[in-house]
Amino acid sequence: MNGTVSRYWSEQVRRLSPYVPGEQPSITGLVKLNTNESPFGPSPRVIEAVRAAADDTLRLYPDPQSSALREALADYHKVAPEQVFVGNGSDEVLAHGFAALLKQADPVLFPDVTYSFYPVYCRLLGIDYETIPVDAGMRVRVDDYLARRGPVIIANPNAPTGVSLPRADIARLAKGRSETPVVIDEAYVDFGAETAIPLIHDHPNLLVVQTMSKSRALAGLRVGYAIGAAELVQALTRVKDSFNSYPLGRLSQAGAIASLDDEAYFQERRLEIIRNRTSLTTALTRLGFDVLPSDANFVFVRHPDYSGDALAAALRERAVLVRHFTGPRVRDFLRITIGSKTEIRRLTDALASILATWRGPTVD
Amino acid sequence: MNGTVSRYWSEQVRRLSPYVPGEQPSITGLVKLNTNESPFGPSPRVIEAVRAAADDTLRLYPDPQSSALREALADYHKVAPEQVFVGNGSDEVLAHGFAALLKQADPVLFPDVTYSFYPVYCRLLGIDYETIPVDAGMRVRVDDYLARRGPVIIANPNAPTGVSLPRADIARLAKGRSETPVVIDEAYVDFGAETAIPLIHDHPNLLVVQTMSKSRALAGLRVGYAIGAAELVQALTRVKDSFNSYPLGRLSQAGAIASLDDEAYFQERRLEIIRNRTSLTTALTRLGFDVLPSDANFVFVRHPDYSGDALAAALRERAVLVRHFTGPRVRDFLRITIGSKTEIRRLTDALASILATWRGPTVD
Repeated sequence: MNGTVSRYWSEQVRRLSPYVPGEQPSITGLVKLNTNESPFGPSPRVIEAVRAAADDTLRLYPDPQSSALREALADYHKVAPEQVFVGNGSDEVLAHGFAALLKQADPVLFPDVTYSFYPVYCRLLGIDYETIPVDAGMRVRVDDYLARRGPVIIANPNAPTGVSLPRADIARLAKGRSETPVVIDEAYVDFGAETAIPLIHDHPNLLVVQTMSKSRALAGLRVGYAIGAAELVQALTRVKDSFNSYPLGRLSQAGAIASLDDEAYFQERRLEIIRNRTSLTTALTRLGFDVLPSDANFVFVRHPDYSGDALAAALRERAVLVRHFTGPRVRDFLRITIGSKTEIRRLTDALASILATWRGPTVD
Repeated sequence: MNGTVSRYWSEQVRRLSPYVPGEQPSITGLVKLNTNESPFGPSPRVIEAVRAAADDTLRLYPDPQSSALREALADYHKVAPEQVFVGNGSDEVLAHGFAALLKQADPVLFPDVTYSFYPVYCRLLGIDYETIPVDAGMRVRVDDYLARRGPVIIANPNAPTGVSLPRADIARLAKGRSETPVVIDEAYVDFGAETAIPLIHDHPNLLVVQTMSKSRALAGLRVGYAIGAAELVQALTRVKDSFNSYPLGRLSQAGAIASLDDEAYFQERRLEIIRNRTSLTTALTRLGFDVLPSDANFVFVRHPDYSGDALAAALRERAVLVRHFTGPRVRDFLRITIGSKTEIRRLTDALASILATWRGPTVD
């Protein structure tokens, strides 16, 4: 709650506790490792396509169905255009997924440690939810979900842990829960996990959500999408067309199509981030951190001797921004985005200096 | 309803009847007068700003609060930034307004002839509504609303009629209904009606919604906004932050700011459309049409001898697209966007030829 409650507010708006995104400060020289952005720019073809689309046709509404983009995504992922839904970032796609599919008689199930927007959607949309604890290694156990009723949403790799499930586990989940929708949020899948998209052909209850914000370096353009059976896509489309006919502007559609057209660039940058993750993991382990095994473009780490918020604050003083959460099972941890080699060096140097100061001089 | 209902759909999605936007076909040589777009491109400064913003920073999330844009809008409209909310087109702003302010114990009130998205939002959000008939001249009568309970939304000028209310009527409405939110949808206000924005200082229940899609020729960029008391803006912000933290991408924010910076261009194009409206009204009147007095960038017209859908179909055969609605009080009418002089000529020539054919040869 931020302050006043007005007599003009609806009951619904009074009970909300909105999501708080990572900060977007403009500090020069800042090493920004708090919102899982790519350290690399998007494909030059995106820049070119967006600039070409920036002309007098901006006076015209965009295609409300984003048909050309949905066809490009369908080609890319080897599905039909009717199996593709696009939205204004995957957050909007997820919101429509909650309204269209996850609002059922039984509470929706998701891990206790996961993307903190899920309970926020539930409060907005009046959906009951039940959280299922991840295990001591922060792993999602599919069997826990198979033992319950209710629709399911799982982030794979999970956020903020980076821990992923193999595709075979997702298949087992979709099959075992064939009576209810199962949504897999694959915002980070391109950094090493297995996508569940090939499973949609056998599982009419499975919806897979992806984003262009991370692996395609297009967080500033706002493009997310979902892939699943045409019936599921139709449900999301019905909600979208009852909310905002034109969620994607002309520039977003043009830029997103161009991104899919540059596979070489995409693969190169994606693999470089994976390599950087290995170096960062090694460096942090040497500094005494426990690093969870990550398939994402971030690592989730804790130091046995120092608290997460003290470390985050000390890093901030050194112009290095990482994300720190306050939930009971995660407050010891830092979530650190995989930056460029230079950014990783700035981070590990800062951490080394912080730890050296805190430990004090060692006497031999 | 488009076909199947799936067992995976939520109850909510089953009961929706989504909004159907005007078509966006790509036919060469088409005269497109069906979705109230500007016949002119946006300010050259917008193109320049968007192209400049299309660089490697697209990898970064946009400012979730759109602070620079909200400050520019606040300057422009002489209000404080806390009194400005921005969204992904005014449709999204309206959707959040329904959820945050118009969902109350009493049904929301709006005219029977108005923007057909309002009842669609109500079904999506589970809001009861009551429609109040406009009078025989398609005028909204404020007294009808003063006599009832429940929050109010009125489009001013109204759509699809183009008929507007003077600011004094909006003030009387806001004052008389001071216990409930009153939303004024000013999508078309720049073409001759009086904005209610100056009234927000005296009326804490008044929210005014505008868009950059029409008078600023930015339908392709998706930028809408609302102006009202900080408490009302806070309500919309709480909903937005429970739905999608980043509704406006970096390019939309940059382009919208640049548009506000070119007042001369805005005024020139706006006045040209108003002049073109006068010519079109004269030409249509000569062809035997009844033309409602319009303060919008469209006219709402009917021919005493021919039905709206027959005329729309005949125009379509001649590659001229206008909008036709099927509701009981509006099905005789056509809604025609004010195009360029050339487009107006193409339209009136096509109508003259259609009417000549239908009337058959006259014998002196």
